[in-house]
Amino acid sequence: MSIICVGSMDYDAIETPFGKTDRIVGGAAVYAAYAAANFLKPVNLVSIIGNDFEDKEVKLLESKGASFEGVEKVKDKKSFFWSGRYHMDMNTRDTLVTDLNVLADFNPQIPDSYQDSEFLLLGNLHPAVQISVIKQMKTRPRLIALDTMNYWISAAIEDLRLVLTMVDLLMVNDTEARELSGEYSLVKAARVIMQMGPKFLVIKKGEHGALLFHGNQVFFAPALPLEEVFDPTGAGDTFAGGFMGYIAKTKDISFNNMKTAIIVGSAMASFCVEKFGTERLKEINRREIDDRIRQFIDLVNFDISLI
Amino acid sequence: MSIICVGSMDYDAIETPFGKTDRIVGGAAVYAAYAAANFLKPVNLVSIIGNDFEDKEVKLLESKGASFEGVEKVKDKKSFFWSGRYHMDMNTRDTLVTDLNVLADFNPQIPDSYQDSEFLLLGNLHPAVQISVIKQMKTRPRLIALDTMNYWISAAIEDLRLVLTMVDLLMVNDTEARELSGEYSLVKAARVIMQMGPKFLVIKKGEHGALLFHGNQVFFAPALPLEEVFDPTGAGDTFAGGFMGYIAKTKDISFNNMKTAIIVGSAMASFCVEKFGTERLKEINRREIDDRIRQFIDLVNFDISLI
Repeated sequence: MSIICVGSMDYDAIETPFGKTDRIVGGAAVYAAYAAANFLKPVNLVSIIGNDFEDKEVKLLESKGASFEGVEKVKDKKSFFWSGRYHMDMNTRDTLVTDLNVLADFNPQIPDSYQDSEFLLLGNLHPAVQISVIKQMKTRPRLIALDTMNYWISAAIEDLRLVLTMVDLLMVNDTEARELSGEYSLVKAARVIMQMGPKFLVIKKGEHGALLFHGNQVFFAPALPLEEVFDPTGAGDTFAGGFMGYIAKTKDISFNNMKTAIIVGSAMASFCVEKFGTERLKEINRREIDDRIRQFIDLVNFDISLI
Repeated sequence: MSIICVGSMDYDAIETPFGKTDRIVGGAAVYAAYAAANFLKPVNLVSIIGNDFEDKEVKLLESKGASFEGVEKVKDKKSFFWSGRYHMDMNTRDTLVTDLNVLADFNPQIPDSYQDSEFLLLGNLHPAVQISVIKQMKTRPRLIALDTMNYWISAAIEDLRLVLTMVDLLMVNDTEARELSGEYSLVKAARVIMQMGPKFLVIKKGEHGALLFHGNQVFFAPALPLEEVFDPTGAGDTFAGGFMGYIAKTKDISFNNMKTAIIVGSAMASFCVEKFGTERLKEINRREIDDRIRQFIDLVNFDISLI
């Protein structure tokens, strides 16, 4: 029993109203792995890194339970690099630099040792790359979850439409859901998107929480009201990693269990934004996670018997 | 046991992306009364109306349980009139016309028959008018709730600061909370505002739900994800009316009961936005309300035992 996390492993330069960092480890697979590893091990990484990816970062991830067998190391190129600046509201950001580097040639290979993984998380990448991973799985995973971004909705819509027919769950933010569906109402958008393939849909609304749709059912998980969101980078990937880690641990892909998984994902994301990059995720322990989940319960729980 | 609702009773002209109406009854006290009357009667209105306020609207409100003893009728002037146009996102609107008419001279008088009311809802009005109402109460109500708007934060901040020291609960939207406190983070804003007087604070976030703060406690109630928000006018007043109606019915002003009251208020507001003005509120019955509250329970409830 294990999980595969596919996605970028990179370096980021981030500027928020609270501070600035020139070079910090990041990428969808890194955030997702740090979150998922709290719930089950191994977390089978599929990614590509360059000659600048520090050994200490590999060792730390391995110590948390990540497997690097599916991570290609390119000796004569650098890792993917992204630089961005957040606005005051933290919901919008400008991308300053995107250096694809090794990511330009990413052609993932799934090692034999990963073939028994029942859960597959496809982080944001070109949909053709995501399709290639699914096709390499000899046994279809029990749950395939997909993340994407607005760039692919315009740049690779054909491939995106194809991969949507191959997955069980899509995770997008509200803007992406509107763009993909052509509907402003998220309820209508959800219906349109589920007709494209995924039976489950998570729409992330940042500081306003997340919605889970399945058929005519809907569930809402709030974001924790925080004094400060220090750095939102990676919050979505951390959410996805926590969600899938919990699902993989419990081996229950029912709508009911996904509700709990969304709360777990939201709790993990609430840690992520407290410090720069993966800093906070590197240090959290199980007790802190349990306390945080308890805060989410208190946040939304009310006495039904009173009504 | 009853409740006093103070606020405007007016006519509105509303334009939304879904339609347009030239003249429709509205006002904070009207919306609040329609919501509160589902939970207890009488709803003691305190307001002022002009010679154009239709008798059929008075009769309908009375049939629902509203008392007009505290409503001044001015024979030679018209009722307050407001006209506005909503943008596509329904979160922002332009005010086109504001004709104060009778509201310019509003000097509310609390009838003796209202003096036993234990719950007081002060809808959005000049804070000096709100202060006058509080001062007329011979016995302080058990719970005084106040609504206000950004206009008074700039135009009457001294009076607003004074009335804040006299009330138990303030209801504002996120923009107003930020403006009043000078803090962007809603958690920080809540702390600052509660130091100004009210022990309880509700921050309404429109389609993103509402937060209830009390000391270090926080509770979040989502808005129901709707296919369409047809007309958001009066949603905040309807929320306040449902909240206070439920509190007055249960006579329990604990934080725990307020959680449930926020869910009830959110349910009432979710009806309000389904049609123009008060149309939907005029027709709902108790069974529909119970069904809607059940939807809210399903929306946020997850199995804690799974964690």
